Amino acid sequence: MDAVAETVQQLIEGMRQRSGFLCSEDSLEELSTAFMNSSLSAEAMEPTEYLKWLRCNVLEREVIIESPMMMGHMTTKLPSYMPDLGKLVTAMNLNLVKTETAKVTSLLEREAIAVLHKEIFHQDDAFYARHVQCRSSSLGVMTSGGTAANIQALWMARQRLCPDAEARGLTLTGARRAVVLTSALAHYSVEKAMCLLGLGSENLIKVQTLSDFSVDVKAMKRVLQRLENVQVMAIVGLAGATETGHVDDLEALADLAASLGAHFHVDAAWGFPLLLDKDHGRGLMKGAERADTVAVDGHKLLYTPMGCGTLLMRNPLDPSRVCKSARYIIREDSFDQGRFTLEGSRPAMAIYLHMNLRCLGRQGLLSRIAAGCALAQRLAEMLRRDESSFELITDPPQSNIVLYRYIPRSFRHLGSVLEEHGKALDHFQVALQSAQAAAGRSFVSRTAVPVRRYGGNFVVCLRAVFGNPSINEEHLEQMLQDQERHASELEKFLFSTAIDIAPSPGGTTRVPDAGEAGEAGEESSD
Amino acid sequence: MDAVAETVQQLIEGMRQRSGFLCSEDSLEELSTAFMNSSLSAEAMEPTEYLKWLRCNVLEREVIIESPMMMGHMTTKLPSYMPDLGKLVTAMNLNLVKTETAKVTSLLEREAIAVLHKEIFHQDDAFYARHVQCRSSSLGVMTSGGTAANIQALWMARQRLCPDAEARGLTLTGARRAVVLTSALAHYSVEKAMCLLGLGSENLIKVQTLSDFSVDVKAMKRVLQRLENVQVMAIVGLAGATETGHVDDLEALADLAASLGAHFHVDAAWGFPLLLDKDHGRGLMKGAERADTVAVDGHKLLYTPMGCGTLLMRNPLDPSRVCKSARYIIREDSFDQGRFTLEGSRPAMAIYLHMNLRCLGRQGLLSRIAAGCALAQRLAEMLRRDESSFELITDPPQSNIVLYRYIPRSFRHLGSVLEEHGKALDHFQVALQSAQAAAGRSFVSRTAVPVRRYGGNFVVCLRAVFGNPSINEEHLEQMLQDQERHASELEKFLFSTAIDIAPSPGGTTRVPDAGEAGEAGEESSD
Repeated sequence: MDAVAETVQQLIEGMRQRSGFLCSEDSLEELSTAFMNSSLSAEAMEPTEYLKWLRCNVLEREVIIESPMMMGHMTTKLPSYMPDLGKLVTAMNLNLVKTETAKVTSLLEREAIAVLHKEIFHQDDAFYARHVQCRSSSLGVMTSGGTAANIQALWMARQRLCPDAEARGLTLTGARRAVVLTSALAHYSVEKAMCLLGLGSENLIKVQTLSDFSVDVKAMKRVLQRLENVQVMAIVGLAGATETGHVDDLEALADLAASLGAHFHVDAAWGFPLLLDKDHGRGLMKGAERADTVAVDGHKLLYTPMGCGTLLMRNPLDPSRVCKSARYIIREDSFDQGRFTLEGSRPAMAIYLHMNLRCLGRQGLLSRIAAGCALAQRLAEMLRRDESSFELITDPPQSNIVLYRYIPRSFRHLGSVLEEHGKALDHFQVALQSAQAAAGRSFVSRTAVPVRRYGGNFVVCLRAVFGNPSINEEHLEQMLQDQERHASELEKFLFSTAIDIAPSPGGTTRVPDAGEAGEAGEESSD
Repeated sequence: MDAVAETVQQLIEGMRQRSGFLCSEDSLEELSTAFMNSSLSAEAMEPTEYLKWLRCNVLEREVIIESPMMMGHMTTKLPSYMPDLGKLVTAMNLNLVKTETAKVTSLLEREAIAVLHKEIFHQDDAFYARHVQCRSSSLGVMTSGGTAANIQALWMARQRLCPDAEARGLTLTGARRAVVLTSALAHYSVEKAMCLLGLGSENLIKVQTLSDFSVDVKAMKRVLQRLENVQVMAIVGLAGATETGHVDDLEALADLAASLGAHFHVDAAWGFPLLLDKDHGRGLMKGAERADTVAVDGHKLLYTPMGCGTLLMRNPLDPSRVCKSARYIIREDSFDQGRFTLEGSRPAMAIYLHMNLRCLGRQGLLSRIAAGCALAQRLAEMLRRDESSFELITDPPQSNIVLYRYIPRSFRHLGSVLEEHGKALDHFQVALQSAQAAAGRSFVSRTAVPVRRYGGNFVVCLRAVFGNPSINEEHLEQMLQDQERHASELEKFLFSTAIDIAPSPGGTTRVPDAGEAGEAGEESSD
């Protein structure tokens, strides 16, 4: 092994020996002083010297994503063979935009996409025999991630509704106002897509959710009745919502989209592997097979490195599947996947996905999602057992994400009037999550979701996400112990400094830090 | 070393022992039979077994990007430490969307971006001290590639011209027709951006080029005079055009953009390192420092793996720098780069870029671009020396790309009437490039560019690209020898099968394969 390979191996081993999820308690401000050099070095540094610099300045202070104490985000621990595969893929340095720069891997990419397609749309063998490697059709595309996949899905919807806009632009086509309907819990990329596509964020109509966090389809229909002089371009259903892990009633949304002639897109970036679970999961996902497009992320529950999004298309001949571009001549007889993708040049992420589909296989993927769902149920039980300290928000959790709140001692006697003191409780969650994160031992994220029993208002919650197959019950216990300790300290501090976080008679409260107020509406942004 | 690491090492070594750029002469159809399995395996495969499968079915048949005989695309040979760094980055599996999942690396990313910014905009030390690590400003963003960078640049331009469109949509704002002006040689992603943003590909006005392939700024001004009732949203200048490697007159374009109050974007995805060359290159790039935004690709001449685009912003406080999204609350006090990026979750490509900026340094990057330009000049000389066989199109090449055509024997006596037989010559280039590529020994790409001496019509050319630092003069000679051999065989075949590719009196010609006709307009699409 050469010196660089050896040093890298040491760095990886060093990273794996650490406990906790964060190597340094220093603040970003403190750490930033080491990264102020905006000058291009005249002299070339030795690679091993650089790696030593990287160890001291980055690795020894960085987040450990694969730590089982990191249970707050969707980025997680990869199979043990992944780093070496990363070495191979980097050495190959293929570019999937054209078969000239990725001949066989373009075929492998199409095969991996076909596997995902079949799990969603389960067409027959003849269908796949025809389309897996067909120059003139496409079962789907790979993208840089779920955001690009959602953008491309709504772009296809816009092409269907308003094909003239591609050439003439939206201002000149005289198109009616086009709206998209989705849940209040849709990922923020859907709104980003509306902005980017020139459709306007106001034309994304976010409908309230039911107590299980699925979108209220009846409310969606009432909204539709009130809309005048608009065209419904698309309906976006959630299958594994970023914030809650729940799945919308896809069957009802498919019916609604069909009755409106609208594009039906399902964002299954997180929830795709639920399809593998014949009992619970597949039932939840019923209706996904009727979607026009489905987004699935490899780098979430398919355990590839970051940057592996896909968009699956039910109809491989959907005329809007092509990202048109007049000067880039579309040849019906070409294998180049670049014809169909939002991105141009792009890496061979397909190899990671393909290897996981084979080396984890159905059983490996299923056991991981099942274990995540079981951990979520286990955490829910632990929280219910301590119901004076915790309020379970996803009750019960539908998949592998748990939302809950910590109830400070001074609030516990209040019982049913809790909702009056929402702001103070919100700020307590923010403070608690920040304190726990800064300590570096265990991590959950925080988010804000609309909660039915609080009149559908957004409340700030702690959020535990179970994608990492190394997490076990002990880790849950440690995480909760940490949380209780930080909460006690925080209460002590808040009272000792006479900052009144306790409820005041009129339901108004003073908050520890007014600057934090903007965070109440934040999302986890996975 | 464990079994997986060992197998990967063997695969990489095997790849490096091959000669030529392509391991298999089999057609895509023949190869595709190995990739028809659309079923998710029930059983998990052993990782080493999978790697053996990958060796037989992919690696032994795949393109060798780092081969010095692969001189046709912009994806090229990386520094020797890159595969091991790929292993490290994969093991870390950071997500740069939030500092919670990439704490220190978010700071490192900002530093790498600042280095690029300074080379382009060369602000003073106080400026960088203030902005390199500032929560409320941004010197630029990382993207999945040049396409996303160009999209984001035009999105920023649209936000500036028509800020209401973000919320209300383009159909409701009553905006006038917004146009973008650029060169006929602009990368196809600019047109893709116009479609995506709802501005319409017809509103991208592509202006003719001069004989050196830079955009004809006088013609652009004449076009502007004829336009009525439009607003010029942006002007896009090319700095290292994909097809020709040339740089537009950025100074003149900056003047024009300033006089129109339009956004000025420079696409330097390829040409950025020309800035490092104080003599020739920096002169060509004069005016880039006046751009509002500049796109630079790490995975081109900064030698990172695929997927490393950047968009640099002259004004770090540009209000349109933020990709707005109402539900994702923008906190002015956050280091999260996800506020500014088109993509959501994304990998730590910054580490590759940062390491190259340090370990190649100014000298390493400069010597590579200088070597590429020298090779281009050398190839141009070789072609001029054999002017009966070859027609040099980039005469002289301005940077590290050479366009030329092979002249079949039956055309050589025609001299100045060559242009009448354009179609037949076009088809000959297509056939020659395909034959050479299929043989797998040496590779140049092909493209079509408007050539002034042919009345500005698009003609098909062979295209040699010099990014790989291992290419030397011998490789050029081998490539040309291969080309002459394939050309002779092709002429023999064409005559022996009585297909008339020779010029006919009326200037019309029969073509070997009518199905190829669509390719005449194609681009290399790097």
